[in-house]
Amino acid sequence: MSSIVQQKVDQAAAVLSELNIDAWLTFVRETTETGDPMLPIILGQPLTWQSALIITRTGERLAIVGKYEDDAVRSTGAWTEVIPYTQGIRESLRATLERLNPAQIAINYSLDDVKADGLSSGMHQLLLQHLEGTDFANRLLSAEEIIRAVRGCKTPGEIERMQAAIATTDEIFSAAATFAKSGPTEAAISQCMHDELKQRHLEPAWEAAMCPIVTTGPNSMVGHGLPSDTLTVTPGGILHLDFGVRQEEYCSDLQRCWYVPEPGETAVPSSVQQAFDAVLNAISAAAAVVRPGARGHEVDAAARASLVAAGYPEYQHATGHQIGRAAHDGGSVLGPQWERYGETPNYPLQPGQVFTLELGIENVDGKRGYLGLEEMIVVTNDGLEWLSNRQKTLPLL
Amino acid sequence: MSSIVQQKVDQAAAVLSELNIDAWLTFVRETTETGDPMLPIILGQPLTWQSALIITRTGERLAIVGKYEDDAVRSTGAWTEVIPYTQGIRESLRATLERLNPAQIAINYSLDDVKADGLSSGMHQLLLQHLEGTDFANRLLSAEEIIRAVRGCKTPGEIERMQAAIATTDEIFSAAATFAKSGPTEAAISQCMHDELKQRHLEPAWEAAMCPIVTTGPNSMVGHGLPSDTLTVTPGGILHLDFGVRQEEYCSDLQRCWYVPEPGETAVPSSVQQAFDAVLNAISAAAAVVRPGARGHEVDAAARASLVAAGYPEYQHATGHQIGRAAHDGGSVLGPQWERYGETPNYPLQPGQVFTLELGIENVDGKRGYLGLEEMIVVTNDGLEWLSNRQKTLPLL
Repeated sequence: MSSIVQQKVDQAAAVLSELNIDAWLTFVRETTETGDPMLPIILGQPLTWQSALIITRTGERLAIVGKYEDDAVRSTGAWTEVIPYTQGIRESLRATLERLNPAQIAINYSLDDVKADGLSSGMHQLLLQHLEGTDFANRLLSAEEIIRAVRGCKTPGEIERMQAAIATTDEIFSAAATFAKSGPTEAAISQCMHDELKQRHLEPAWEAAMCPIVTTGPNSMVGHGLPSDTLTVTPGGILHLDFGVRQEEYCSDLQRCWYVPEPGETAVPSSVQQAFDAVLNAISAAAAVVRPGARGHEVDAAARASLVAAGYPEYQHATGHQIGRAAHDGGSVLGPQWERYGETPNYPLQPGQVFTLELGIENVDGKRGYLGLEEMIVVTNDGLEWLSNRQKTLPLL
Repeated sequence: MSSIVQQKVDQAAAVLSELNIDAWLTFVRETTETGDPMLPIILGQPLTWQSALIITRTGERLAIVGKYEDDAVRSTGAWTEVIPYTQGIRESLRATLERLNPAQIAINYSLDDVKADGLSSGMHQLLLQHLEGTDFANRLLSAEEIIRAVRGCKTPGEIERMQAAIATTDEIFSAAATFAKSGPTEAAISQCMHDELKQRHLEPAWEAAMCPIVTTGPNSMVGHGLPSDTLTVTPGGILHLDFGVRQEEYCSDLQRCWYVPEPGETAVPSSVQQAFDAVLNAISAAAAVVRPGARGHEVDAAARASLVAAGYPEYQHATGHQIGRAAHDGGSVLGPQWERYGETPNYPLQPGQVFTLELGIENVDGKRGYLGLEEMIVVTNDGLEWLSNRQKTLPLL
């Protein structure tokens, strides 16, 4: 069984052939400091010196790397020709390109897709210097289409890992809900969830300080805020958690919520229930539009229209993002055509892409706090499959 | 007592004034994926949306960030004006620059200094789009001089943290040497050192798989290789460790070695002792040249000449690198004027910079393996101070 790195490098060669691009060049240095998001996928190791990883549509995989790093690159088994250098990369790089003579050389820059934008500005300028006086500088183009396909379309093995991450996330949500019954602070709930991670030797799917995001009522910071060490789970409010885990290098990202009953209260207040139903239905409305070829902004518009029709204000973020090795995994966004999303809401969806569907309502009733849900789906040949067990009811905590 | 982030932002405003640069713009997005190396120093938090962090020579600190991230940025206390946006950053960015009207805008790209090259190629192109039709695009320049000073010149508080990291490293070297007496594999020694880290809740200073680098004899991979699970500590060979820890966000990076005696052998063979002395003296030769204003290539040349004069081959790397929040901390290199080091060996050294001094000899005697040392020093007003306790003798294991 080949490693995921080997599988993904194979996939890349096939994608180049599909897209009629002769060569894909990943050009990096000191990647523990300024890593290219594609490097873990196509190499799985850091590199120190200026390094050129070249995949061709004919299936060649050449790595030009600093001496002392060549053995480690060879040991991946994914790179068929490893060329070490001592003083500088220029000569080997030019000689290799002259031999391959690719008509197109895709490189990792993108205005819109951060996952395809691993080339630094200085490295881009250095590459142009290295290629000065050749025609290769005129053959450069963005690798974003290649990266969107290689990174975005998951293999069954990748999907399996994400399902395992989701199962763990469900367990940790349960533990957090049990813990939250006693009315702890947001920070204590975060700590409880971090303890659950530690017991499993796992990491959060994003920056630990904000994973989970915990909101307990009208005074909580909504969005990317830090859990408060003064605000507590309070009767009459909504407990909302946004959380994910990274397990075997693959992530989950889910939101769940609970209503915290006041003494004697035995059911969710109808205004809160209405808000929950509106969120649930808006997510269903988004899901109904997901299929290969649909555009992200169409999915987003369906959810947004559903929520607004139910009488709630529009949320100020996208309805979903891709997820994989990172919680925000670049590529298509299920979002509106706002400036900040660039071209990403306009790409056609592809089978194998995994997305979140997420939205919510700020401060329900003017006093209950944030209510939101987030699920995970995979695009299939004729629609979608839910990867998460949808939250369909709002339980009392 | 202000935080290190506050201190460093203060230092940056002072550096701008010294260098006669009106404004420094750090322009980032999704920094957990493609982080700018300066962000931990001037913010200490990740950012999701396109964000502009602007420091002026007059001491203004403006952060234009996506809505929902503004509270977290404000909470640092280092940014005096935080401007949130929803749909896109362009309008706020242009309005802010129009108000400040800086004659120069330094941005984070550099051909030579990876720590000053945090701007991605796509973000550089986006910035130019945002500024289209204004004169600001013509006022952009590289922030490398600013970053070299802000990152490179350590405050006494930063030096203190690095000394603590060095003390821990010494402890772990001792533990590793004790463990190595029984003749374990390279991988087992690496595991022993990782266990020591774990007991202290610390991380290695670089990629765990290669920290420590362990070499046990003539068949070990030299340089950035992985510890072998078949090669073992063997009588008649040299045990060499290259290792560092990250402690309170600051790093150490040291090399130590031991001679492994054969049965009955009570002293280091004279050929190995000679090699050790040559390495020790070459490091002393480098140190003798270190002072403010000296150039990195001068320091490197002194060490290289000393080793060659002693009859050993030239090593194929630089004699030292800066160290701080990362083991390889960018800026000046104490290296030869080779293409791969670009301009970095030509910068004048500055007080407060912390460097490694490191070199070695491959496969001593054609059968003993690698012998190398690495120390840490800080440039002072009139020379240097040793931060590490130099290894001056070669002990029997």
